[in-house]
Amino acid sequence: MRQSQLFTKTRREAPKDEEAKNAQLLIRAGYIHKEMAGVYDYLPLGLRVIDRIRNIIREEMNAIGGQEVSLSALQNPAIWQATDRWGDDKVDVWFRTRLKNDSELGLGCTHEEPMVRMMRDHLSSYRDLPRYTYQFQTKFRNELRAKSGIMRGREFLMKDLYSFNKDQEEADAFYEQAIQAYKKVYDRTGIGEHTYLTFASGGMFSKFSHEFQTVCEVGEDRIYISDEKRMAVNDEVMEDAILANLGLERGKLREAKAIEVGNIFKYGTRYTKELGLTYRDHDGEEQPVIFGAYGIGLGRLMGTIVELLSDDKGIVWPETVAPFRAHLVALVPDPVAVAYADALYEELMASGVDVLYDDRDLRAGEKLADSDLIGIPTRIIVGRDTIDSGQVEVVNRKDGEVMRLERGALIGAFA
Amino acid sequence: MRQSQLFTKTRREAPKDEEAKNAQLLIRAGYIHKEMAGVYDYLPLGLRVIDRIRNIIREEMNAIGGQEVSLSALQNPAIWQATDRWGDDKVDVWFRTRLKNDSELGLGCTHEEPMVRMMRDHLSSYRDLPRYTYQFQTKFRNELRAKSGIMRGREFLMKDLYSFNKDQEEADAFYEQAIQAYKKVYDRTGIGEHTYLTFASGGMFSKFSHEFQTVCEVGEDRIYISDEKRMAVNDEVMEDAILANLGLERGKLREAKAIEVGNIFKYGTRYTKELGLTYRDHDGEEQPVIFGAYGIGLGRLMGTIVELLSDDKGIVWPETVAPFRAHLVALVPDPVAVAYADALYEELMASGVDVLYDDRDLRAGEKLADSDLIGIPTRIIVGRDTIDSGQVEVVNRKDGEVMRLERGALIGAFA
Repeated sequence: MRQSQLFTKTRREAPKDEEAKNAQLLIRAGYIHKEMAGVYDYLPLGLRVIDRIRNIIREEMNAIGGQEVSLSALQNPAIWQATDRWGDDKVDVWFRTRLKNDSELGLGCTHEEPMVRMMRDHLSSYRDLPRYTYQFQTKFRNELRAKSGIMRGREFLMKDLYSFNKDQEEADAFYEQAIQAYKKVYDRTGIGEHTYLTFASGGMFSKFSHEFQTVCEVGEDRIYISDEKRMAVNDEVMEDAILANLGLERGKLREAKAIEVGNIFKYGTRYTKELGLTYRDHDGEEQPVIFGAYGIGLGRLMGTIVELLSDDKGIVWPETVAPFRAHLVALVPDPVAVAYADALYEELMASGVDVLYDDRDLRAGEKLADSDLIGIPTRIIVGRDTIDSGQVEVVNRKDGEVMRLERGALIGAFA
Repeated sequence: MRQSQLFTKTRREAPKDEEAKNAQLLIRAGYIHKEMAGVYDYLPLGLRVIDRIRNIIREEMNAIGGQEVSLSALQNPAIWQATDRWGDDKVDVWFRTRLKNDSELGLGCTHEEPMVRMMRDHLSSYRDLPRYTYQFQTKFRNELRAKSGIMRGREFLMKDLYSFNKDQEEADAFYEQAIQAYKKVYDRTGIGEHTYLTFASGGMFSKFSHEFQTVCEVGEDRIYISDEKRMAVNDEVMEDAILANLGLERGKLREAKAIEVGNIFKYGTRYTKELGLTYRDHDGEEQPVIFGAYGIGLGRLMGTIVELLSDDKGIVWPETVAPFRAHLVALVPDPVAVAYADALYEELMASGVDVLYDDRDLRAGEKLADSDLIGIPTRIIVGRDTIDSGQVEVVNRKDGEVMRLERGALIGAFA
């Protein structure tokens, strides 16, 4: 894409009402727009990153048997009353609204209830199990405070997967598969080495759960890491009995602040019993389905990548989630160099390399500052000496390393 | 995909609380699930159709210069008060909700206001024009009645494109481009020949507009068609002065019921003036941006295709939006025939042909009835005589035409 056509503009100053580094950088670079605290729009660059994250997650969910659906945001209170999760004293982040006839509706903050209810129409026998459904869906959570940029939204895109199994053994085996799939997601999105499977409390309705926590100074959680076992324990469950059960020694654990980038829950028959999701086993007996849920917030993950990998010049995207493969910068207004850059852009696009091409009529310093801010991992510079030398500069955004390549070698490097 | 793995089940009977044929068929075939009147979930087959429609629309919007974004559903009343569209007396479909601090928010029923407001941060000079933004985004509309299945939702996915131009001439030229792009969308999704560009009232805030109306008995609108000019006039603007202006004669028009499958609006400086979206022209003077909006409801379009093209056995998808390229049906439980079908399935998938494979242990009649109901355009039958003859039956869902093909020829036909 030609940057002169991209409608978003970068800006030098962070907006004054934004405390979080992730939102400051993403707004400055034109990835997002703030509607209000905790509510952000995704602009073309931001939507590209979200789509790449979504595709990585989708591949991993499909690989473990997930079937994609999309449930509604508007929620009928009746199914939430059945599981005792409608009241604000039970779930304190409900947004509520009303139909014209004044009956109350909720905006989905999670989807256990409608997913279980829907599955009743499609599941009746042991032959219908196991089943795994997932969606990328907008959640609404009425957070009292929302100061963490896109990491804690009042409206945010979440991948939520749900497991339906015939017994605990089958459910446990899938739970392990889901853990491995989640690890692949964090590895592929560039935060794997900082992310720990973490033992945590189960919140309101299951005793324990697992979270994935990414070590980061701005994290709202406090975890204790065992480097030896490559796992962690959330502060909220740091009890001697639990540590003993996990085979961990308090003295060997390292404390860190961390961001929760995913969570997985074993519900057992919670939800399925209340909502009557049963199956007939081999003997024709009705049995409750064993249920689980597995969530990843896409904005949270994107914000974590920015918090973790940016530097003082701007964002540094991993290649796997960057909005473009390369940032081609025509550094000088010399017509011959511009014609060279134009032709190189066309050639790269024709080779299937998705390039952002800075063809704007700006000073070199401004272009390079913007390129650092936007953070595409590979920069290709067509400069003053490109015509004479026949070489472009290829700069690695992360470490600043520079290679000089002939045109053919450049195309080959991306193919 | 193996149908034994697909979690959705078909059902013989339509749900009793569903009047609309589109929802009856889509629920029976397992494409959607009804949460409440006007609120539907998309299940795997339904989401595939929506995604194919989305991709067609995306290609056509990109082709006319659209840049994709995704704006929030939660809306700050302030920007809607600025244009006098917050009150229920102005826009009567608002869903409202409240933050914890009791301040009121809206759920976006359309996005002119936030789109114009966002653009203020990125547009300041004539050099920044023209700009075209679009999104696929969930709209919420508090409809008093919602009885038309997925054709009139309280929550529905919409493509909304917005145009920002420097003057009326440039805006008018884009408007013509948008009309052509919309025609391509309807042609590509299989309803083009039944769809007419229709002159209509502009609703609340523009005098006139154009709609795209698809002739269909269950349509809520009444239009008058000029076959000669291949255009129509909405009942609401059937006045002699208007007909004269359009060069139409009342006596030559044909009356029909129709479904509004798209609408396009020229707003002029409405919205941009109220929200202060201006640009500096060549002389440095501040000018209001000329604005337009262009909408297609994806559920409405999908529902229209079902209403228009289904028959008494079920849905008949056009190839371009069908959930799968072909429906492979292993008709007999004979192990040799099943092994043949298994191998054919693997071979088709390996050739990149996305196939639904009915490998279920069911009677032939049930399988064929399900296949008719689901409506994939091409059915491949592995039957009793396939092994002897070395041929499969290829059945066209639309007209029932049968071809007998050798395996190699079959693969070739899809490649």
